[in-house]
Amino acid sequence: MNVDIWSDIACPWCFIGKRRFEKALSGFPHRDQVTVTWHSYQLDPSLPEHYDGTELEYLSERKGMPADRVAQMFAQVTQVAADEGLHYDFGSIVVANSQSGHELLHLAKAKDAEGARGTADAVKEALLSAHFEHGEDIGSREVLVRLGTAAGLDAGEITAALDAGTYRDSVAADIRQAQAIGIQGVPFFVLDSKYGVSGAQPPELFAQALETAWREANPLVMVSPAAAATDDEGLDGAACGPDGCA
Amino acid sequence: MNVDIWSDIACPWCFIGKRRFEKALSGFPHRDQVTVTWHSYQLDPSLPEHYDGTELEYLSERKGMPADRVAQMFAQVTQVAADEGLHYDFGSIVVANSQSGHELLHLAKAKDAEGARGTADAVKEALLSAHFEHGEDIGSREVLVRLGTAAGLDAGEITAALDAGTYRDSVAADIRQAQAIGIQGVPFFVLDSKYGVSGAQPPELFAQALETAWREANPLVMVSPAAAATDDEGLDGAACGPDGCA
Repeated sequence: MNVDIWSDIACPWCFIGKRRFEKALSGFPHRDQVTVTWHSYQLDPSLPEHYDGTELEYLSERKGMPADRVAQMFAQVTQVAADEGLHYDFGSIVVANSQSGHELLHLAKAKDAEGARGTADAVKEALLSAHFEHGEDIGSREVLVRLGTAAGLDAGEITAALDAGTYRDSVAADIRQAQAIGIQGVPFFVLDSKYGVSGAQPPELFAQALETAWREANPLVMVSPAAAATDDEGLDGAACGPDGCA
Repeated sequence: MNVDIWSDIACPWCFIGKRRFEKALSGFPHRDQVTVTWHSYQLDPSLPEHYDGTELEYLSERKGMPADRVAQMFAQVTQVAADEGLHYDFGSIVVANSQSGHELLHLAKAKDAEGARGTADAVKEALLSAHFEHGEDIGSREVLVRLGTAAGLDAGEITAALDAGTYRDSVAADIRQAQAIGIQGVPFFVLDSKYGVSGAQPPELFAQALETAWREANPLVMVSPAAAATDDEGLDGAACGPDGCA
């Protein structure tokens, strides 16, 4: 079963949604047959490469959001993140454009396609953690090389791919695909190209979606006595239902 | 998903469009569920069976196009074709009517309908390459038999079908269908009888059209918490969108 997840890096609900989905997946009986594919999405392509102020300053000064409302939202999201075991530190966040981070993610996906395992997930996790928990600049080449090599990528390959823009088209293709699907916010989960889940839903909902998609792809094969097909009793054996016992 | 493509043989943009569409298709996640059907179109039914001059002479003498403008157009198209890995050689092109070539294509389609795979695509590819890259006369019976047998058709069947005009009506039906659709130039692509793409568009546009048509035929079933449906919060979980994080 395939699960395609569109998400950004500078997206507090994307990290929380990742944890909640992971919780559901870890309890899913067929988890070994689930392939998760991370896709790029940019909430704010206009973000500067570098911005010297804080996230609060960026949102209030550049985006015109009232500072007290932003502070209140940070406090609430920090609490929800803490409930998922994440240590958000909005005060230390470095405002940065996520384009290069997404290109690094696609380099990791290319490694996984060649036979490596879990590289893309490790990079996605590292980017989110660096941004929200460790005040790292995810637009910085040095940070990207460090996170990428920790996930098993080669430093020379990272630099070459980012310099050449090797995965720029792949990032753009993901965003186009999101538009075709009608995605207007992230995180957004698509199960087996059929079921959609929008947002950082509770683990129970992800579990339900996994079960539904699995059952659809693997319907029960009913075993019935062949002779019964022509009997008046039909294909079902004697059973009790809401209307009584047949 | 069905993709119907109207195109001619003596049509430089048809070969370029074929490559660009193929590039998009190769990167399309659901490519295994896409059926491509080639349809006939004749840009110039008045073309002679045989013409002894060059393509440039034909266009300038018979069609009255200024020779220098034709030469300039050839140079430009040759460059665009080269960008797609095609080696156009306008100097060697043999001017010929494409009617018999289209009948060969329909014989190949009939083989595919009987269970063969890829015969029509192989014939279409061979006709375009023979005409634009190898200076072959696509009106010549000998050339058509050679291209057809290389694509897996039987020489005797080819000769019999062309002698009897077995597929003349099929070619005419394709052209009538194109007129009914309102096609005024080729290549022309129709996805799932619903989305049209005119001309040799960039692969990104074909990719977008494939995504859109696929998603329309396979809409996402949104999985949402039942209780939330009546809440003010609506069906979505916490997510970040262009206007911030809810």
